[in-house]
Amino acid sequence: MKFREILNSDEFILFDGGMGTLLQGQGLPPGEMPEIFALCKPEVIVNAHLAYVQAGSKVITTNTFGANRFKLPSKYNVFEVNKKMALLAKKAVQGKALVAGSVGPTGKMLRPLGDVDFEELVDAFEEQIRGLVAGGVDLILGETHFDLAEARAVVVAARRVDASFPIGISMTFEGNTSLTGTTPTGFVLTMLNMNVDFIAINCSLGPKELLPIVQEMLEVSSTPILVEPNAGLPVLEDGKTVFKLEPEPFAFQMLEFAKMGVKCLGGCCGTTPQHIASLRELLSSLKFQKNSAHTSFALTSRSKYVFFGFEHKPVLIGERINPTGKKILTEELQSGNLHYALELGEEQLEAGAKVLDVNVGAPLVKEDKILPRLGFELVKRFDPILCFDSTNFLAIEKSLQIYPGSPLINSISGEKGRLEKLGPLCRDYGAPFILLPLEGKKLPVTSKERIAIIEKMIKKCLDLGISKRLILIDALALTVSSKPEAAKACLEVIKYCTRQGFPTTLGLSNISFGLPARELINSTFLAMAIANGLSSCIVNPNSSKILEIFYTTNLLLNKDKQAKEFVNVFSNWQVGESRVEKK
Amino acid sequence: MKFREILNSDEFILFDGGMGTLLQGQGLPPGEMPEIFALCKPEVIVNAHLAYVQAGSKVITTNTFGANRFKLPSKYNVFEVNKKMALLAKKAVQGKALVAGSVGPTGKMLRPLGDVDFEELVDAFEEQIRGLVAGGVDLILGETHFDLAEARAVVVAARRVDASFPIGISMTFEGNTSLTGTTPTGFVLTMLNMNVDFIAINCSLGPKELLPIVQEMLEVSSTPILVEPNAGLPVLEDGKTVFKLEPEPFAFQMLEFAKMGVKCLGGCCGTTPQHIASLRELLSSLKFQKNSAHTSFALTSRSKYVFFGFEHKPVLIGERINPTGKKILTEELQSGNLHYALELGEEQLEAGAKVLDVNVGAPLVKEDKILPRLGFELVKRFDPILCFDSTNFLAIEKSLQIYPGSPLINSISGEKGRLEKLGPLCRDYGAPFILLPLEGKKLPVTSKERIAIIEKMIKKCLDLGISKRLILIDALALTVSSKPEAAKACLEVIKYCTRQGFPTTLGLSNISFGLPARELINSTFLAMAIANGLSSCIVNPNSSKILEIFYTTNLLLNKDKQAKEFVNVFSNWQVGESRVEKK
Ligand SMILES: [Zn+2]
Ligand SMILES: [Zn+2]
Ligand SMILES: [Zn+2]
Repeated sequence: MKFREILNSDEFILFDGGMGTLLQGQGLPPGEMPEIFALCKPEVIVNAHLAYVQAGSKVITTNTFGANRFKLPSKYNVFEVNKKMALLAKKAVQGKALVAGSVGPTGKMLRPLGDVDFEELVDAFEEQIRGLVAGGVDLILGETHFDLAEARAVVVAARRVDASFPIGISMTFEGNTSLTGTTPTGFVLTMLNMNVDFIAINCSLGPKELLPIVQEMLEVSSTPILVEPNAGLPVLEDGKTVFKLEPEPFAFQMLEFAKMGVKCLGGCCGTTPQHIASLRELLSSLKFQKNSAHTSFALTSRSKYVFFGFEHKPVLIGERINPTGKKILTEELQSGNLHYALELGEEQLEAGAKVLDVNVGAPLVKEDKILPRLGFELVKRFDPILCFDSTNFLAIEKSLQIYPGSPLINSISGEKGRLEKLGPLCRDYGAPFILLPLEGKKLPVTSKERIAIIEKMIKKCLDLGISKRLILIDALALTVSSKPEAAKACLEVIKYCTRQGFPTTLGLSNISFGLPARELINSTFLAMAIANGLSSCIVNPNSSKILEIFYTTNLLLNKDKQAKEFVNVFSNWQVGESRVEKK
Repeated sequence: MKFREILNSDEFILFDGGMGTLLQGQGLPPGEMPEIFALCKPEVIVNAHLAYVQAGSKVITTNTFGANRFKLPSKYNVFEVNKKMALLAKKAVQGKALVAGSVGPTGKMLRPLGDVDFEELVDAFEEQIRGLVAGGVDLILGETHFDLAEARAVVVAARRVDASFPIGISMTFEGNTSLTGTTPTGFVLTMLNMNVDFIAINCSLGPKELLPIVQEMLEVSSTPILVEPNAGLPVLEDGKTVFKLEPEPFAFQMLEFAKMGVKCLGGCCGTTPQHIASLRELLSSLKFQKNSAHTSFALTSRSKYVFFGFEHKPVLIGERINPTGKKILTEELQSGNLHYALELGEEQLEAGAKVLDVNVGAPLVKEDKILPRLGFELVKRFDPILCFDSTNFLAIEKSLQIYPGSPLINSISGEKGRLEKLGPLCRDYGAPFILLPLEGKKLPVTSKERIAIIEKMIKKCLDLGISKRLILIDALALTVSSKPEAAKACLEVIKYCTRQGFPTTLGLSNISFGLPARELINSTFLAMAIANGLSSCIVNPNSSKILEIFYTTNLLLNKDKQAKEFVNVFSNWQVGESRVEKK
């Protein structure tokens, strides 16, 4: 029995429940880590696992929630503890259930929220996961995570141990967001981009309270969902936190999730083998119905997300953090001063840019230092959705490490070796990227040439295990003054990509190079491109003409309900107006 | 043997040559009409026809070129003369060739060029054609016409006698246009709209000189072409005009036409049975290759034409001659004063409108009088391409009679009975029309509803014998403030029609009703619609925003070679500019 097989079956998958109650009943002293307790009393943990298998769990979870180098006292060998716990679990299940290697939070936070770096987190998780895998677990389960950056680190670490190992990540939400501000939707989108096997929510609340959050997750997730609530809300009793939702009402409430399309069910704090047994009982009369949510291409930051696609508003990607032709910005970046770049970021966000392109490429600028530093400072101030724009591999890699979400990478061209090198990086970090249909020295002017390159590159992506949902296609806005047929070809490429289900982008301003009335050309072309399905474009979001087209096409494509935004922005508009005023 | 069968075969069709030389040799006195001469000496004409049949002609032409009420002395009965000549021809051919009933010009011109009305011409031709049909001709051949209005009258007359009777019309060109200014392309387009069986050119020049004109015709005609040149250029000899191109060189030059895709070949002045025999000889070694020109939807006036379609610039149809909301225009039209309406026409043509919509619908305005009168005055002054916009059947019919070309009819809706009534009128006059997908009281908001109505109406058109090329589809610009999904639906309808090969139009301004910044909405929607294939729109051509979109989309879709127009119009454009200056 392989985990991915049962995940693809049309049966529900029953996970296990809490350990705390069971271990306390067997003598776990208050304050002691269950991992350390189990090292002395392995039979207790084996029996606890066994009780879940007997109750019907098909996946049980190792007793390794805190078994990482930050939490385990330093005298313990992290690898060995994890391996041992995995072996105990495997021994308990006797092939009757699968074993998920539990990986909980480290208790440390990524800078600037805390004082560790991403690579330190990844290292710690990698050490733990190596132990779990060595002990024979069937999958990795990141549990009870509350910060998106740390959740990403678990996945990156697991991929480093074994890129093809099954993995699911579970986050816990306090009300509408996680502790550090991630929404259920933002979490799911980030995990979809990382191509995990399943996405989970656990702890914090009981089944009833988790209902709206799980509903939100199901609306965007095409990947199976695991739900593991506590046995109701916590109650203080004799100075101790207890959970009092009984097995039968727990199971009854859990049935709602099953009916909504949740594939995997289990319990967290306060749940016991009896809860799982009751749940099994009720589930036996229900048929699993796959959740068929379709989810567009999306980018995320820690607290924000943005969808790309014909059913969504076109995404304006601010182009202004780019030293090309900007003397002051170039000089500041050369001296390591980020002041003006940060200002350009703020200004573009205020103008309505949903994503900031960040390009620091200029002579004498060390991109691998400056790009991640600027990214870090932007994240600290605005938590923006970023697009890292560089041809420097190291600069991209380091930027992916400071960033707590799914940023965009600009770009991967068809140049020899580029996709092979950058593609796996984007895949492993779950970073969507711009696919640039350029190869060799000849510009592909006709749509036929461009589509041929696109098809070739997409095939290569799939061969590299890069998920389709990471691909944003640049339809190539070539200069019409030198290539008169290029704009039409670009529209055809957009139409093609839209039909094929790929989102598109454009570096708009190139099209009008060498001609008068450039803003007129750019903005008109934007309207035409949007009419053919364009999902985003890289522009100056302060351009009044661009904003006119943005708001007006949203109105015309029914993306501005009751014309609210349009009327708000344009109620006093006059022909010849050169500003777009927002009230 | 039926004419349409041999027209659809993959063989060339040999027509006959001139009669003059033959009849003069048999005693036709100078200045006497050949028709009158033949009444006395029927055997002469029978022998002449016979000589052509023996030379290889598969279609010979009746001796009725001038046999109409305006040219025949009044003592002759037009019907009987034509019937008699047809019978003589049928007798001569003995079933070995088909007989074309020749219908030449009346020598009269339509007002204001001359002093007859369209209906007088149609009556005269109808009388003549009735005689020809009674005498048993197999097809009607309008010959040597030089005015488009008169050529149209021949077709309309023939349709009245028998709507399904085969007919071809031949025009004669002096240099680049006919005597009254029609170009070969304008002539072909008008005849394609009238759905004639073949389109011809005859007389005036020898084969060599007709070459570029025939080339032009072949480029736009998907209908078979007949070419009947003179035997070279005329030469004055002893005070007489003679044609000296000998049979063999004539035939040799004619071979060029055959190679280019001309289906039917014959001769005009100065050609003899020997010319035809030589031609037959040469043709026998050649295989007919069908000319495969594809021709877009087009409108014509006497001297102008305009194509509609994605490969052409979008056509701006000036909307301003419309009394709705215009107090002065309404009052003037009520009093029969056309001054302001004519001014609006001139002004819109100067602004770049290629077609003028003419609507005089207002209380107390007699549309059936005023619409054709205004059309007549516009034609007299500007020879514009017109769009007659009325719900009054009689007004449309009379307007079709004063107009020397293929005007647009605005519009035929899916309202019960409307297509059945107006459709055949448009068909018989070769008038393209706007198909308006409205039926019943409910507005079709979704594209699905609109497309269903369109498909139903197109089927009905075909059932009524209305050619596909007369159909211009209104994609319906409904008001987005009340129907938010309507603009998107409209774009989908445009895309659908473009895919199906139908041109489209829009009454643009309706879309923004009730919203601020209406010109911004209208112009942005125009860009989006053009990007989806819109072929034309009904607009105020004086709007600077509309013209910005017009010129910019032409540039972007590579319809403005070397960006000439764009640079000319916008070289000093500034953001916020409210005028479009043309130099
Ligand atoms: Zn818990
Ligand atoms: Zn002639
Ligand atoms: Zn002739």
